[in-house]
Amino acid sequence: MEKRIVCFGEIMMRLNPEGYLRFTQAARFEASYAGGEANVAVSLANYGMDASYVTKLPDNDLGRAARNTLRQFGVDTRDVVWGGPRLGIYFVEKGASQRASKVIYDRAGSSIALAKRTDFDWDKILDGASWFHFTGITPALGGENPAICLDALEACKAKGITVSCDLNYRGKLWTREQAGETMAKLVPFVDVCIANEADAADVFGIRAAGTDVDSGKLNKDGYVSVARQLQERFGCRHVAITLRTSLSATRNLWAGMLWDGKDACFSPEYDITIVDRVGGGDSFGGGLIYALANGYGTQDAINYAVAASCLKHSIEHDFNMMSVAEVKALAAGNASGRVQR
Amino acid sequence: MEKRIVCFGEIMMRLNPEGYLRFTQAARFEASYAGGEANVAVSLANYGMDASYVTKLPDNDLGRAARNTLRQFGVDTRDVVWGGPRLGIYFVEKGASQRASKVIYDRAGSSIALAKRTDFDWDKILDGASWFHFTGITPALGGENPAICLDALEACKAKGITVSCDLNYRGKLWTREQAGETMAKLVPFVDVCIANEADAADVFGIRAAGTDVDSGKLNKDGYVSVARQLQERFGCRHVAITLRTSLSATRNLWAGMLWDGKDACFSPEYDITIVDRVGGGDSFGGGLIYALANGYGTQDAINYAVAASCLKHSIEHDFNMMSVAEVKALAAGNASGRVQR
Amino acid sequence: MEKRIVCFGEIMMRLNPEGYLRFTQAARFEASYAGGEANVAVSLANYGMDASYVTKLPDNDLGRAARNTLRQFGVDTRDVVWGGPRLGIYFVEKGASQRASKVIYDRAGSSIALAKRTDFDWDKILDGASWFHFTGITPALGGENPAICLDALEACKAKGITVSCDLNYRGKLWTREQAGETMAKLVPFVDVCIANEADAADVFGIRAAGTDVDSGKLNKDGYVSVARQLQERFGCRHVAITLRTSLSATRNLWAGMLWDGKDACFSPEYDITIVDRVGGGDSFGGGLIYALANGYGTQDAINYAVAASCLKHSIEHDFNMMSVAEVKALAAGNASGRVQR
Amino acid sequence: MEKRIVCFGEIMMRLNPEGYLRFTQAARFEASYAGGEANVAVSLANYGMDASYVTKLPDNDLGRAARNTLRQFGVDTRDVVWGGPRLGIYFVEKGASQRASKVIYDRAGSSIALAKRTDFDWDKILDGASWFHFTGITPALGGENPAICLDALEACKAKGITVSCDLNYRGKLWTREQAGETMAKLVPFVDVCIANEADAADVFGIRAAGTDVDSGKLNKDGYVSVARQLQERFGCRHVAITLRTSLSATRNLWAGMLWDGKDACFSPEYDITIVDRVGGGDSFGGGLIYALANGYGTQDAINYAVAASCLKHSIEHDFNMMSVAEVKALAAGNASGRVQR
Amino acid sequence: MEKRIVCFGEIMMRLNPEGYLRFTQAARFEASYAGGEANVAVSLANYGMDASYVTKLPDNDLGRAARNTLRQFGVDTRDVVWGGPRLGIYFVEKGASQRASKVIYDRAGSSIALAKRTDFDWDKILDGASWFHFTGITPALGGENPAICLDALEACKAKGITVSCDLNYRGKLWTREQAGETMAKLVPFVDVCIANEADAADVFGIRAAGTDVDSGKLNKDGYVSVARQLQERFGCRHVAITLRTSLSATRNLWAGMLWDGKDACFSPEYDITIVDRVGGGDSFGGGLIYALANGYGTQDAINYAVAASCLKHSIEHDFNMMSVAEVKALAAGNASGRVQR
Amino acid sequence: MEKRIVCFGEIMMRLNPEGYLRFTQAARFEASYAGGEANVAVSLANYGMDASYVTKLPDNDLGRAARNTLRQFGVDTRDVVWGGPRLGIYFVEKGASQRASKVIYDRAGSSIALAKRTDFDWDKILDGASWFHFTGITPALGGENPAICLDALEACKAKGITVSCDLNYRGKLWTREQAGETMAKLVPFVDVCIANEADAADVFGIRAAGTDVDSGKLNKDGYVSVARQLQERFGCRHVAITLRTSLSATRNLWAGMLWDGKDACFSPEYDITIVDRVGGGDSFGGGLIYALANGYGTQDAINYAVAASCLKHSIEHDFNMMSVAEVKALAAGNASGRVQR
Repeated sequence: MEKRIVCFGEIMMRLNPEGYLRFTQAARFEASYAGGEANVAVSLANYGMDASYVTKLPDNDLGRAARNTLRQFGVDTRDVVWGGPRLGIYFVEKGASQRASKVIYDRAGSSIALAKRTDFDWDKILDGASWFHFTGITPALGGENPAICLDALEACKAKGITVSCDLNYRGKLWTREQAGETMAKLVPFVDVCIANEADAADVFGIRAAGTDVDSGKLNKDGYVSVARQLQERFGCRHVAITLRTSLSATRNLWAGMLWDGKDACFSPEYDITIVDRVGGGDSFGGGLIYALANGYGTQDAINYAVAASCLKHSIEHDFNMMSVAEVKALAAGNASGRVQR
Repeated sequence: MEKRIVCFGEIMMRLNPEGYLRFTQAARFEASYAGGEANVAVSLANYGMDASYVTKLPDNDLGRAARNTLRQFGVDTRDVVWGGPRLGIYFVEKGASQRASKVIYDRAGSSIALAKRTDFDWDKILDGASWFHFTGITPALGGENPAICLDALEACKAKGITVSCDLNYRGKLWTREQAGETMAKLVPFVDVCIANEADAADVFGIRAAGTDVDSGKLNKDGYVSVARQLQERFGCRHVAITLRTSLSATRNLWAGMLWDGKDACFSPEYDITIVDRVGGGDSFGGGLIYALANGYGTQDAINYAVAASCLKHSIEHDFNMMSVAEVKALAAGNASGRVQR
Repeated sequence: MEKRIVCFGEIMMRLNPEGYLRFTQAARFEASYAGGEANVAVSLANYGMDASYVTKLPDNDLGRAARNTLRQFGVDTRDVVWGGPRLGIYFVEKGASQRASKVIYDRAGSSIALAKRTDFDWDKILDGASWFHFTGITPALGGENPAICLDALEACKAKGITVSCDLNYRGKLWTREQAGETMAKLVPFVDVCIANEADAADVFGIRAAGTDVDSGKLNKDGYVSVARQLQERFGCRHVAITLRTSLSATRNLWAGMLWDGKDACFSPEYDITIVDRVGGGDSFGGGLIYALANGYGTQDAINYAVAASCLKHSIEHDFNMMSVAEVKALAAGNASGRVQR
Repeated sequence: MEKRIVCFGEIMMRLNPEGYLRFTQAARFEASYAGGEANVAVSLANYGMDASYVTKLPDNDLGRAARNTLRQFGVDTRDVVWGGPRLGIYFVEKGASQRASKVIYDRAGSSIALAKRTDFDWDKILDGASWFHFTGITPALGGENPAICLDALEACKAKGITVSCDLNYRGKLWTREQAGETMAKLVPFVDVCIANEADAADVFGIRAAGTDVDSGKLNKDGYVSVARQLQERFGCRHVAITLRTSLSATRNLWAGMLWDGKDACFSPEYDITIVDRVGGGDSFGGGLIYALANGYGTQDAINYAVAASCLKHSIEHDFNMMSVAEVKALAAGNASGRVQR
Repeated sequence: MEKRIVCFGEIMMRLNPEGYLRFTQAARFEASYAGGEANVAVSLANYGMDASYVTKLPDNDLGRAARNTLRQFGVDTRDVVWGGPRLGIYFVEKGASQRASKVIYDRAGSSIALAKRTDFDWDKILDGASWFHFTGITPALGGENPAICLDALEACKAKGITVSCDLNYRGKLWTREQAGETMAKLVPFVDVCIANEADAADVFGIRAAGTDVDSGKLNKDGYVSVARQLQERFGCRHVAITLRTSLSATRNLWAGMLWDGKDACFSPEYDITIVDRVGGGDSFGGGLIYALANGYGTQDAINYAVAASCLKHSIEHDFNMMSVAEVKALAAGNASGRVQR
Repeated sequence: MEKRIVCFGEIMMRLNPEGYLRFTQAARFEASYAGGEANVAVSLANYGMDASYVTKLPDNDLGRAARNTLRQFGVDTRDVVWGGPRLGIYFVEKGASQRASKVIYDRAGSSIALAKRTDFDWDKILDGASWFHFTGITPALGGENPAICLDALEACKAKGITVSCDLNYRGKLWTREQAGETMAKLVPFVDVCIANEADAADVFGIRAAGTDVDSGKLNKDGYVSVARQLQERFGCRHVAITLRTSLSATRNLWAGMLWDGKDACFSPEYDITIVDRVGGGDSFGGGLIYALANGYGTQDAINYAVAASCLKHSIEHDFNMMSVAEVKALAAGNASGRVQR
């Protein structure tokens, strides 16, 4: 099997009302455990990769339930650090038609947000690893997390480990200025940089000329320009951008672009009826890492990543419960959804 | 806060199978409590208005549960009258695609249907009120209800209270002739008259020339003509008409028109993927009353009312669980349904 | 009432995760009892026909639950044979958007698969019957089932009973060669032959020239040619073919063709938003048998069958819970899905 | 198989909150269909008897769902009369510990309550029947129901059909005076009279001297005296009395007595942990009729009836889902509840 | 109606797995909103009192859902303060037999814990009030809460408002020393002091000689001695103590004692089968306040309070959903749990 | 950490109706994955041991879901063999009061039942293991399973691995004669032999003189005699016997005895209110292995094992979700079930 892929970040309890009920109508919540980087780790484990998750969890039943979920789907959790006060929580209300989905985060004061640099022995954690993945959310948790990320990245550099990062700007966690300043220290270590249409602008002020995110109007050249700027400024080997046209909360168009420093390959665009949109971006990251770690060419890699994340939108909760065979079938063009008996 | 808005009518237990199960497949029903005018009261309370509900409920746990639901969403229930034999019930089976939704009413003999004129002291109930709302369903309940409505309307006139009425013709409750005769006595008190494409014809024989409701073909001039006729015949200050094109049980187009005696303003048309269509018309009434009671101009008022009711179609059960900010965002053009984090 | 229609085949426990959960996410399954021919029997009973089901069930609570479901919807179960080791089971995972639905069959070793010719006294079972229905799945169960089918068909011939058969090729149960060889002995007894776009090719190598099933491209002439070949080769009086264009797991186009030896009538095509697609083909069979048994003309018959099966796609689980009046309303063109109050 | 047993009465929709939720806490109800005599019919069908149910149901989906439930468990419904305005409903709130269970009836104006004598052709309905069962609830529904019952009983007498009646006094439906007057006309036709500790006193003023129902103190001689008085006054061949000691809503003691005109046999007393107590009395009636119709002696009959109804208390909803073998095992003394693998 | 009773404290989201699932088995949580003082307020509103709740809630959908729950059951929420970061949460795992129930609190950093003295204008809030209730949990939340409580109590004193306090020691929130020091400043304002068997010892070191809480052995004299000491030390007019004998997580004995400065009255002891034990103590407080505020004598008051809280143990979630009539029936000795039809 | 404990046997899908519904009432099943030896492995992993599970699973989503469940609770699944036709299934109907629980097995033809000796490389699987556990169910599956067990046991002997076996006689799988003959070859390898009151008699005809299992009457000397006979005949170092007195399906008494060749230690007896009894015996085995593997003395070991399995009866589904601390607290005498906050 491939060498280990280590993902680092938060994992939270996710609570969502059943079906399309709004928060104020709900007398029950579906409970799952997820988070930006954890979603990537589960994607990779579902593809048969040796994925490991690093985080800090409270030593109580809720922390253990989060750990158990990762184990259930095959993620190695031996490097989870135990301690701290609480598990972060986020509440998801599923939108429909013109009513947008809504997320309420209750993640302040979590065990990972209060983690210490001394909690993580990166030299040991990264031993035998070939790839390290994190997102812009982890440093945004504040406290020592930016420093912890830097520790990890320096260890990666020393060991020659490939690094991927999803910029994933979260305006609720930090300002654009804070994000820009911190990420500018971390992205230079990043080999594979992932962003959605807005992240590069939010974090680094890098804009795709001629594109209006709100209007959904996409401009291919603009995205290539963003990728090129990210590469030039930080030296990223690959830059991937997800392209979402949000027609409604129920229907999205979805595509992606991968720039390899030379060529920009665009995936086909999928017309998606949404089951659960949360985790869609993470499933793109999971697919991309799988593809690049397994030596796919640029076009095949973006096609795999976009097919993988297209399928995620049809699955409840954050995790992308798809196999390599299922992703490849869609990437090969079979989008008919005919019953498999 | 604004002065009190008093709504008068029935509130029933609503029972629907879960998901898309048909009645004969269901071993469980979701229970909520709703009704045409109650839905309007809840809309208004959700918008922060001081809304009050007047009805008669049986003095048992089911009546109390109905009252509690109103209280939960902020509606004042101090003027509810207690007594009588039973709570009305209606069963809703959610349709999909070419299969229509189905409603079975079991409302005969309810406490409100058997209510007496002496049950309601309108002079006291309407004290401090600025607006009164009812629908054509209430007099259709029969017994003394037409007289009770007339009592209320005369009290409104005496106090200078604005009156709105949704014609809401229900063929299961009375004939077109009965409806026409009774409503002709009540509508002269109405300032703001609300109707769907068919109501004016059903109740008063007023037709929008050149429009075929079943074909879904809408004719703007025809609707203006209907509004003008209603105004001319009964003196209504405002006439609002909802315009539904039913492509299937899953997909509807939705728009509205507001006539202010001078101008007819049409809202944008929304292409809706339906979660729960029942209560859609009532949410239009709730939005319109909010807008007019808060001094919106004709175009803004119809835009707010249609945006509000567009959003209702994405929400389970009858009540429109939307805030003013959410409605305004859609009315301002943000229909992309992007996740709000 | 009409004379008895006897359906013969398997009935299994159907287990599906709730909503859109994948198998590996599910902690609960919805349990129902269904099967290709049982679905037809229930359709017919729902239309008020005197439908009877013949199968073999284990003499335990699961077998009794399967029998009870048939009784619940009015199917006569007096000729069910009791015994054998187990009830077959199939697991259904509902797809959405680009993710296909998935069926896992666990039907080997079931009581019906191990049934003996001596279990069924066809002379008695078919006494008073006017129609006999089976599908290609029953002989595919193996063991003595091909011989049992032949016994039944010969008894039908002796009694002048009309025979219908849905070819229903299942690649998991037998090879194309096995299917072809066995069905070639059975189909000569068949008056009404039903197939989907692929069955005739899979079983008999009869192809609709110029049609590519995977592309969804339909060629009317090709289907007529298939029907004509089936008629010529086996003497079938009627040949019906269902025409599905699978745009995604959520959206299908659906139509059908009926060849009566002289004319080929095509139904209108419906654009369907899918609730549950499993049992869609069987509901076509149920509609067609109803129409032909009640003397509908060719165009009316195909219109009824396709409207019936269009509506099935909006209903949870395999059974088509529609009345004649509901089917006729759609067949007459009312596809607007407006609420029926 | 035995000759037909015909049961006559109401069947209603039963709605109960899940688990131990109170009515005012419930957002969902479990829906089933049951009624005093219908529960007896299902018991008998579960024991393999040829049981038939006679009632009047509204011709809508709710009436059909009620009918379907009877069919599901093997009750013959061919003599159901269709028509009238509505299906009766009752709401059940499950008690626990010191909190009593609570039932809210909403049965006024139901199709059966408004049924006419001309609805039922007893000569035809009772053709081939050997036993007729009704309860005191049916005449208590009012309207023509007392006369309908009398019609049926006279037809029974003419045909030599055994008649059983559970007195089942319901204070919400009629006064003790009304009950006494009406039942005094019907009970003379009754061969097997069933009552609980209070019924004979409520309906006929016949008291078990020295017994205080509320205290739960039972006096064997007193019950024999009640039975003897019923026999003397109305000529009943058998009188059965159920003896419930209600320690709490969760725990009851349960026994019964059968008087055959000569001997009074008492069953063993069971100490019951209650799952669902509603239908407990009806399951006693079902067991008793089975035993007497199959020629059990007095002691065996009361033992079977009490074992059957003991087991009912462990089953959700009204119906007693037990087989003859299961009842016999308990009657034979196996109350250990060891797992049956 | 009586004058207003004001309760002050936290209200949290309560999340519990369904049934007896452990936290690590749960994929769904039932969501309700409760808290020690909120539970008292709802009890009082259910008894028809004019109860008002004062707290600070985050201005988001979760805060609004908490507020809505209070409104639903008739509690006045006009004095809720809006703001701060989050709603506290607690997770409840229901025990059974020898397995104890388990509560995980996640309440740190809640809006109420971070509330400021300036958030509450006690002079206005307490205007028209006759009674004020709080518990030892509120000052234990830390920050300015001890001072806020003192502000409230001084305002009560100035206005002649009766004050009740449930000591409710929570070892997870503060140490015995912290509790003792803070509560010693607050309890002198308390007229009615409520405690369980352990609170007085935990908070003030006041012990009931000869009683071992863990053994469940109760000593009546010891409890009177505790009450007398509390009265002597702080001047409380009434001291009430709940007496729980925990036989298992499923079965408890439950009684109480009320000391009025002269006499100690003990209630009957109830043998309880537990549905949900959380909120049991609060329901005692609610019952006691109701009884004392309505002028009950000492014996009647403790009987009402204990009957009320006995019934709470049979109800899901924290709130005591009982009416005055239901409590009085049990207090009058009707514990048989017979079905109420 | 301790050395590896390897468990070998079947894991099946467990399907049970919700709550107390009978099979024929259920429209939904709760799905979990369990089996006699798998339950032991999960117990051990929950206690922090390095437990590994060996079985053969079908390479489909159901097999993967079974594997995932083991992983979720920390069991190592690297030695699972993939292939074969199907996953075994068993259906559990929960009993209550006098109604027994019922299990329907559908395990014939499963992947493990059809496994081959060549599927398992015991030398590799047992590398680094210190303990091996199996039960009498595994050889009872038939085919090559007796030989596979013998292979494993001989490898254990060669490596000096401790072997435990739960006799677990299943009359549905083999006769007493078959069991006796096969087990007589396997038990000589067993160091720790576990049985319930009936197993030794069923398998080896070894009886506890003076004990009548059905009467629940326990005779301590008799059990010691059984243990001594097992030791003498097969050389088992430890013999443990579980002692269940089944008062009803809701209430059991539960104790155990451990014989160490010299002394027989009896645990305290627990009076249990049952939540889910299935897996009770397996949880005893899990507790016993934990205790003996960690060097507990005979009395402490039996106390731990019985406390562990007592607690299992309070937990839904087969797995014993308890920690060492929780078991130790009960073993130390804390059975009060007081809420842990």
